[in-house]
This record gives sequence, structure tokens and C-alpha cells, in this order.
Amino acid sequence: MRITPLAELERRIQSLQGQMGHADLDAVLMVQNADLFYFTGSIQQGALYVPAAGEPLYMVRKDYTRARMECGLKEVVPFRSPKDIPGILADFSRQMPKKIGFELDVLPVAIFQRLQKVFGDAETSDASHLIRTVRAVKSDYEIEIMKDAALMVDRVCQRAKEVIRVGMTDLELAAELEFAARKLGHQGITRMRGFNSELFFGHIFSGADSAAPAFLDAPLGGIGVNPSIGQGASYKRIEPNQPIIVDFAGAFDGYLVDQTRVFCIDGLPEELVRAYDDMVAVEMRLKELARPGAVWGELYDACCAYAAELGHKEHFMGAPGAQVSFIGHGIGVEIDEYPFIARGFKDQVLEEKMTFAFEPKVVYPGLGAVGVENTFWVAPEGLKHLTFTSEELVVL
Amino acid sequence: MRITPLAELERRIQSLQGQMGHADLDAVLMVQNADLFYFTGSIQQGALYVPAAGEPLYMVRKDYTRARMECGLKEVVPFRSPKDIPGILADFSRQMPKKIGFELDVLPVAIFQRLQKVFGDAETSDASHLIRTVRAVKSDYEIEIMKDAALMVDRVCQRAKEVIRVGMTDLELAAELEFAARKLGHQGITRMRGFNSELFFGHIFSGADSAAPAFLDAPLGGIGVNPSIGQGASYKRIEPNQPIIVDFAGAFDGYLVDQTRVFCIDGLPEELVRAYDDMVAVEMRLKELARPGAVWGELYDACCAYAAELGHKEHFMGAPGAQVSFIGHGIGVEIDEYPFIARGFKDQVLEEKMTFAFEPKVVYPGLGAVGVENTFWVAPEGLKHLTFTSEELVVL
Repeated sequence: MRITPLAELERRIQSLQGQMGHADLDAVLMVQNADLFYFTGSIQQGALYVPAAGEPLYMVRKDYTRARMECGLKEVVPFRSPKDIPGILADFSRQMPKKIGFELDVLPVAIFQRLQKVFGDAETSDASHLIRTVRAVKSDYEIEIMKDAALMVDRVCQRAKEVIRVGMTDLELAAELEFAARKLGHQGITRMRGFNSELFFGHIFSGADSAAPAFLDAPLGGIGVNPSIGQGASYKRIEPNQPIIVDFAGAFDGYLVDQTRVFCIDGLPEELVRAYDDMVAVEMRLKELARPGAVWGELYDACCAYAAELGHKEHFMGAPGAQVSFIGHGIGVEIDEYPFIARGFKDQVLEEKMTFAFEPKVVYPGLGAVGVENTFWVAPEGLKHLTFTSEELVVL
Repeated sequence: MRITPLAELERRIQSLQGQMGHADLDAVLMVQNADLFYFTGSIQQGALYVPAAGEPLYMVRKDYTRARMECGLKEVVPFRSPKDIPGILADFSRQMPKKIGFELDVLPVAIFQRLQKVFGDAETSDASHLIRTVRAVKSDYEIEIMKDAALMVDRVCQRAKEVIRVGMTDLELAAELEFAARKLGHQGITRMRGFNSELFFGHIFSGADSAAPAFLDAPLGGIGVNPSIGQGASYKRIEPNQPIIVDFAGAFDGYLVDQTRVFCIDGLPEELVRAYDDMVAVEMRLKELARPGAVWGELYDACCAYAAELGHKEHFMGAPGAQVSFIGHGIGVEIDEYPFIARGFKDQVLEEKMTFAFEPKVVYPGLGAVGVENTFWVAPEGLKHLTFTSEELVVL
């Protein structure tokens, strides 16, 4: 169990302060769990106030003693409610900000309205792009944790080979793999930033169920155990000659990796085997192109064009009519971080030590889905694997 | 796997329209997963438009075909983005609303701002209280599902008796019970409405760890596997003569129940045994008092007073300094629904078929926590148990 080192927190705060300088903000106030973990090392009921320069203040209602144990920042201050903020700023000889940024992509309106009152007539703006920009580039410390999460998903895949059998339900397989992951220290909760985005370990399903579209912004969806979940494993039974998808998020010490492998019993129809190999080829194409400086949207366009060239225009990244407009997604504390290897991102480029999952997949309704997914970090010379399980189609 | 019957959806919509009448709203637009499940039976990327009178419109982007399969409402309409809403309203000969309500307690600011633009100069207001009021009173259909969820947590408790042993970690015990629940069809995701509120199955921990406070608004917290989780099971090993808490949320077909039982190996210190019995006595006092018409805050005050009378003022509902101001919480699709058996609710009363969990607990830092929790529904003559596992302290 890691406690985030103070040097990490300081680097992250300074990086945000750099972004705030460009955006002309006097302060940013953060309250969301993932952001609090990233910038303070400790998720508590509280608010982190980051001024344009100088020490941040972590104001904590519950539980203050735990914040003090987990958070190395100098100023961890008890408070009872946002109304206390002006008094605390005064105590620390800080001026009230004239322009302040909030996490408007995740902050509920009712909470925002209460916070706005606290800051009187300060101009408010959306700091979420700045926060996400900072969080996209990882440190060596973060990459090391993600390697631990990658070890976890590899062992989950080894376990899948042991437990998959004809006649078990997709849910039973999911339960076995979740159990294996938890015993390895999987943290349970898999965070997504997007409103309404929910994920439970990942997507484990087989045959036609793997081709069922769902609400989640993902190439595959699945039926789920009931309509209130509407994604993931269902009660379908595993049969021979069908793809069995193990799309699993490792989650360790606050960090995630995402990996997909395909299993089957007694082989797959030739069409799916060829499609699987083609998806591995799309991943190879990405590896040829992805370097620091590569434009997110251009990587997306090039990989889509290559998939089309291989004959997968209609079924690439979703069933016809339900295709998503991305192939890769940044990952770290949340599973939907920057960068997006997605349509339309013409200005943003890969930077060294960004981490993202890339998941070329094809979907044939009624038959099933195949594809591969790995999590990478961007090195000066190109992509480096975080997830490392063999990419061979697993025939049991 | 249940599909919500149309008659259920119609009753729920009519109940909301009744509330809207009191609040003088022309329409409510809902987009949050739990509300969409409750009012449409199907969680999709979309928006449910409920006019003050007449048929609601469920506008769905992804996945439309699944919405059609799961949602019995007459008007399920494909759409691409909120910008399409005025056109769709015109197609259905509906006037644009002059006053419209949104889920401002959960809706992120950035999404709200986009929706506001769509509705031009319509007055906007917070419909969350209306929605939560409707959802608080359950139908027989909903209560039946919650009984299934109660069966699940009972079996989880039986499993706990089989697997608890000296030397296993709290996390290993949690993993075993989660595995058992998943094989019984636990849906995995446990929804909470509160911003930043997260829960993974429940809280399973032992000894001093059960007394560690955490960020979650709950009497017990736990250490968790790492500071990014900060609650629930950790790597502490189970020892004799310590309380082992199994606070577990059953989750089946979209509905939750919440139950806590205490286990131990070779008995507990007499102080904790007496405290446990006292918490069962507080639950008995609640049962004597809780009837349709009882005021939420008065039930809270009476039970607190009784706990204090039994000598538990300082340690009731949290470690000293970390006490929460509620003993019970409504439960259904989310685990933090109305009613709240909590301080300060002077006007709201229990109604027939409300469902809530009641969890009197005491916390002794360094020693551990004990208490009991059950989920009830409000019958005309008083509370009826949904969760039903024996309330005897389990000595293994």
C-alpha cells in the first residue's frame, strides 16, 4: 500500500499552477475523489484550494486525522463546510480569488451553486481541461504502479485459462476472475470520469452477447445481469467455437490498466480468426506511428483507414449503427483520461509518459466480437507495453 | 431478469406528474442512470422528457434498439444530441416548457449548461426533491425484488460462517463473500446518489480496523486496500475475540438491501457483547415507534436518546469526533434514498411502503465496532423486515 510521496504531490501541484498561469486563473478548487487522490494522496470529504502560486490548502471535514496520515502537503486544515473557506483563506493571509476554476465536468450543479456563493462575485471558469492535461502525463512513480496493475491482469488471464469450460455462464467466469483479482489486491472500484459512466472490473462475455451494444461509450457492451446494469456479463452459457472476451481493468494502489484478450474452446470460425489477426495488425500500425508529437486524431484516422483497408469498415469499433468514435483512451486514476485516440482531435499531441489503452475491435452482430487491447506508455522512441500478456488468441 | 412492467412505469410517471403539479413545473428532463432505470426500465445514453401531463418521451442515442426492448413506454425516440430536443418536441406537437426541472443534485455543471441552451429562456429549477420523493415509496413489485436481494445477503452471511478463520485477511473474507454474491447474481454496481459517494459491495473488516473513520458518510469506514479507496476491507488479519463486521449490500435486478451482522471467533469482550445487545435494543425501540406518519427526525432523536440512556452517547454512530448525524437511510435503486432517519428532519414523515435501512452502531477506537443493520418496509401496522438473517451475534 503506497502513500503518495510529497515530491510527487509537489510536482503535480506545480504542473497545475503552470497550466493556471496560461489560463489566467487565481485559484482552482477541487472536490472530486479522483482529483483529490491525485493532488493530495488522500480522499476525504474536503476541498483542495490551489492558488496560482504558493502552497495549496487541503481543507478537510471528514476524516481529518486520515488526511494528516496520508497527505504530505504542508497545509491540511480542518473545516466544517464551504462557508468556512473565506475565513481559512484570511487565516493564511491569502486574498480571495478574482477568477477561480472548478471541476465543471463532474461537479453537480447544486454543489457548484453553494461554492459560487462562497466566492462572492469571483469569476468562475471550468478548470477540468487543465486538470486533465496535468494528469495525462505520468511520472515514473505512477508508471511503476501501473506495472503492478498490469501484473494483476496478466494473472487474471492465466486464471481464465484454468477456469473456462463449456456450459459455465459468462457471469460465473466473471465471478471467478473478479475473485482472483480481489485476492491479488484489486481495489474494487474502477473510476470513470464521464457522467453516468460505470464499470465493474470490465467486460466478460461470449459469442453473440459480446456483440450486443450498450449505453457505455465502448466498442463492446454486453447484455449484463439485468437492465439496471445493461452491460457486461450475463447468464449466457459458454459454448465451443465462440469468442470469449476478457476485457479486464487491473486496479492497484489507485491506478488502472486495461487489457483485452480473446479465448475460445476448440477454435473459432476462420472469419473471426482473420479479424482477430487484423486487429493485432492495427495495433502494430499504431506502434509504428505513435511517437511524442503525434496528433491524437491523426493516429485515429490512420488506424481506422488501415482497418478499412483490411476490410473492417462496417464492423470496426462497434456493431453497424453503434460504432464509437475512438480506438484508444488515456488511463491512470480514471479509465477515461486524456489522451483520446479519437475522431476530431486535430490539435492535441502525444507527449512523453502519457499512458493510454488502445483497443481495436470488430463486432459481428449475432456472431460475436474479437479484438485486442493493451495499455501503453509513450517513450521517446515510441510506445512501451504496460500490459504484456501474450497476444495470441487462446484456444482451449 | 426482470423487465419493468409498463404499469409500473406509468404509475411512477403519474406520481412524478403529481409532484410537478405542486411545483408548477411544465416538464422534467432526466438523464441520470438510476432515474432513467426507475422511470423507463432501461439505462441508455438519452434523456427522458416528462411533461406535466401526457405521455413522456424517452429520447435515446445509444442504444436505441435496447431501449425499445426494455422500455414499455409508448414514445421511445432516437436522437443524436440534446440539440435535437426542440425538433422532437415539435414533431410530437409539444410546446417548449416555460419552467423545467432537472436533476441538479447529480447533473454536472457542464452538461447542465448545454441543456439550458437547448431550452432557451425557460426557467430552470431543481427537480431532484420531487424525483426522490416519488422514488421513496415503493410498489409491491419493487418490494418483491428487494426480498430477492435480501435472500442474497442472507446466503452471504451463511457463507461467512463457513469461510471465516483466524489469520485470513479482511480482504480475503471480502473477496469470498463478493464471489458468493456474484454467483448468486449480484449485479456488481451498487449505486449511490451522493456526489463522491462510492461503495463496493459493502464494508467487511475486523477489530480496530472496523473503528477507523473514513470519508464516506457512514458510521463505520475502514482502512481500505489503499488510500485511493480509503474505506472497506484492508490487509488486516482476522484474530480471535475481535468483532468481524459483515455490512453487505445485496443488489439484484436493480434493487438494493443493506444488512450488517457481527461475527467473531471465540467470543467478544463483555463490553462489546453488551454494546451489541444494546444496538439490537435500539432497533427494537425504532420498531415500537416507526409507523406511517412518524417524523423522520423524531425517530432519530428518540433512538439517539435511547442509545444515550444505554450509555452510548460518545460512541454512537461513529468514533468520537467522526459521528454521523443519521441512523437510517432510504434504499431502493440507490443506497442513499429518502427517507433519512436523521437529525433535523422535522417535517417529513414515514409513508406506507417506504423502504429504509436502519443501522445503530457503536465505535470504540482501537477496539472495534459493533451494531446491527436491517432493511425494512413501512406497513400500516409498522415495520416489516426485508432482511431477515438471525440477529444473534455469531460466535464461531
